[in-house]
Amino acid sequence: MNERLARVALSRLGEPGDPRLSSLVADLGAEQVCACLGEERGVAGMATEVAERLRGLDPVSDLERAAAQGIRFLVPGDAEWPAGLGDLDRAGPLNGRGGAPLGLWVRGAGRLAGTCARSVAIVGSRSATTYGVAVAGELGAHLAGAGVSVVSGAAFGIDQAAHRGALAARGPTVAVLACGVDRAYPAAHRDLLGYIAETGLIVSEVPPGCAPTRLRFLSRNRLIAAMSLGTVVVEAAVRSGALNTASWASLVNRTVMGVPGPVTSAPSEGVHELIRSRDAALVTRGSDVLELVSPAGSFTQPTPRAPERRRDRLTEVEQRVLDALPVVRPAPASSVARTAGLATGTVEQVLHGLVRRRFVARTTAGWLLEPDGPVAAGGRPDGAVASGGGRRPE
Amino acid sequence: MNERLARVALSRLGEPGDPRLSSLVADLGAEQVCACLGEERGVAGMATEVAERLRGLDPVSDLERAAAQGIRFLVPGDAEWPAGLGDLDRAGPLNGRGGAPLGLWVRGAGRLAGTCARSVAIVGSRSATTYGVAVAGELGAHLAGAGVSVVSGAAFGIDQAAHRGALAARGPTVAVLACGVDRAYPAAHRDLLGYIAETGLIVSEVPPGCAPTRLRFLSRNRLIAAMSLGTVVVEAAVRSGALNTASWASLVNRTVMGVPGPVTSAPSEGVHELIRSRDAALVTRGSDVLELVSPAGSFTQPTPRAPERRRDRLTEVEQRVLDALPVVRPAPASSVARTAGLATGTVEQVLHGLVRRRFVARTTAGWLLEPDGPVAAGGRPDGAVASGGGRRPE
Repeated sequence: MNERLARVALSRLGEPGDPRLSSLVADLGAEQVCACLGEERGVAGMATEVAERLRGLDPVSDLERAAAQGIRFLVPGDAEWPAGLGDLDRAGPLNGRGGAPLGLWVRGAGRLAGTCARSVAIVGSRSATTYGVAVAGELGAHLAGAGVSVVSGAAFGIDQAAHRGALAARGPTVAVLACGVDRAYPAAHRDLLGYIAETGLIVSEVPPGCAPTRLRFLSRNRLIAAMSLGTVVVEAAVRSGALNTASWASLVNRTVMGVPGPVTSAPSEGVHELIRSRDAALVTRGSDVLELVSPAGSFTQPTPRAPERRRDRLTEVEQRVLDALPVVRPAPASSVARTAGLATGTVEQVLHGLVRRRFVARTTAGWLLEPDGPVAAGGRPDGAVASGGGRRPE
Repeated sequence: MNERLARVALSRLGEPGDPRLSSLVADLGAEQVCACLGEERGVAGMATEVAERLRGLDPVSDLERAAAQGIRFLVPGDAEWPAGLGDLDRAGPLNGRGGAPLGLWVRGAGRLAGTCARSVAIVGSRSATTYGVAVAGELGAHLAGAGVSVVSGAAFGIDQAAHRGALAARGPTVAVLACGVDRAYPAAHRDLLGYIAETGLIVSEVPPGCAPTRLRFLSRNRLIAAMSLGTVVVEAAVRSGALNTASWASLVNRTVMGVPGPVTSAPSEGVHELIRSRDAALVTRGSDVLELVSPAGSFTQPTPRAPERRRDRLTEVEQRVLDALPVVRPAPASSVARTAGLATGTVEQVLHGLVRRRFVARTTAGWLLEPDGPVAAGGRPDGAVASGGGRRPE
């Protein structure tokens, strides 16, 4: 049995993310571990029935059956093996799970290492809100459009929206499953998984045919985190699996990001806790994510600003006069001059110019801000945007 | 002219937050500054008409007229003077504004220093959303209910909601205005200001009768920040005056906090930018705020957790068996035992117990999670809360 076949056998024999098994394999190699287990030496407390089960396995047929279904098996050293997975061997275990996968069962048209080289995981609640789904979809599309692969778990809610967003932008996307890559879990996502496989990849460390279990979901989460440059949590209640993925991302030193939401929404509670505790950076859009996962200085975005206002183009003296003008009760030029700390003559000259440009109104009682002018209407004296509305300026 | 009267005169003579004037007063005392200005010495480049204006002032009548309206004038050293304002003399100017106020014109039943000793500012957009208004109102009520005064600017939107929340909880609240405390700006808030004065305070550094100007709003913001232990920004577009208050709070080393919102909402954009740039801590509820403004260790809250589930009370072996159970296709006990790494006999015994407690279902083909049981329904194998909904657990 060679190293690859030994890894096929071990991947069927053990549970994924068993840190004892993966550290044995890292130390001795899979061939040696198989040999030891086959001789029933009781290595590291494995149950003695293991040897018998090992003898019953047929990794050669396993690989042939998989190949017939369009499934390949990757091991470390393969060109397609994602480099980031090695970090799992150096990161401590979490909830009893850990270590690099023994191998990856892969289905789909993409090439895994290349696809993961610039990739971001988007994860979140299955019970997502329409808000979360919209944000995840837009993030997925933005990242995919920028050539960044979207990694997720093909679950309901946020995962689905992230994959769909990437597919809509015709970008690469990777679904990492807790069951065999020949299976569809949830079953309703059979078509989604089919689309993903057409251009992207379906990946799992459990062999074809295997069912998902809670343990396998927890193990799967570490792969999502380690295969990507950063993990974005879109919505996650306080006890969501997405927070487990975020913890894994921290453990392997990936960028952890969170999209905030209304504080009245339970599915945002876990994300807010991540940001509050400084475990995650707050991101609000695709460009925030790109900035955080790109090499320092290679991607920067301008600080969000409101569009320039007409008053921004006034001279400093004109602005001082405007600042000194009353909003409600008109005032004489001498009073405006006093407030502005300028000579009355200067102020009168400036005021006439500002009346022509409709910043200022003149009444019999004196001067005041033009009620419909660019300052009174567009920029209130309290420094706020008076209109505003609920939409982000594009 | 004594120091108090000199400060009354200077408060009418200059613009609030003029850092040149306040540093002169800090160095020489208001009496001396008045004497200098009155002798037209042209101190620090003040316009020469100043002396004439100073001679025209009558601070004694000013105080008498104010007293007749129930307005008092506080100066540093008075028992009611808020200690925190002194920090403004040590903090650098911002947008040309700065320095401690020369005095404060105050109206209302409260005592200012005591009211400010435990206080939090809640500020935000005038063009607030119903979400922002609801959150600000709840925060105001929560803080006031905990004996923390709510400081704000009596503006439309967030300010109004914060004051109203505090009033509803019968707690102290302080409105800091950019116009005289005898005026109502905005006029629609005349009643609100009346209610605030009944139990709380209306404060301004500009004398009675003065109108609000843009400059006075910017100056006012520093008082809101310095009079409270921390500033919470609830909603603020990228160019909101509330962000100016947040900057002042940073300058005087107060805790700056932000309430997140939907990333699709423009009024939350400025808050998200504050949190993203680590200038503000993310807060989602009153207890978060109390924790941040209370002396270290004196107020802590439990990390938010979902309610305990029935499976949390199972033994470790029972949990391992549950974790190993399939969700969809039933499996024989031997297969479950293999996945769980336990002896088949043990697993069979545990399975029978779990069937009785409705965690597990038995079919002719084997065992699987009870579809309506507490694990499959309440806690999916993917580790997520399957139901969840949009409401925070109380």
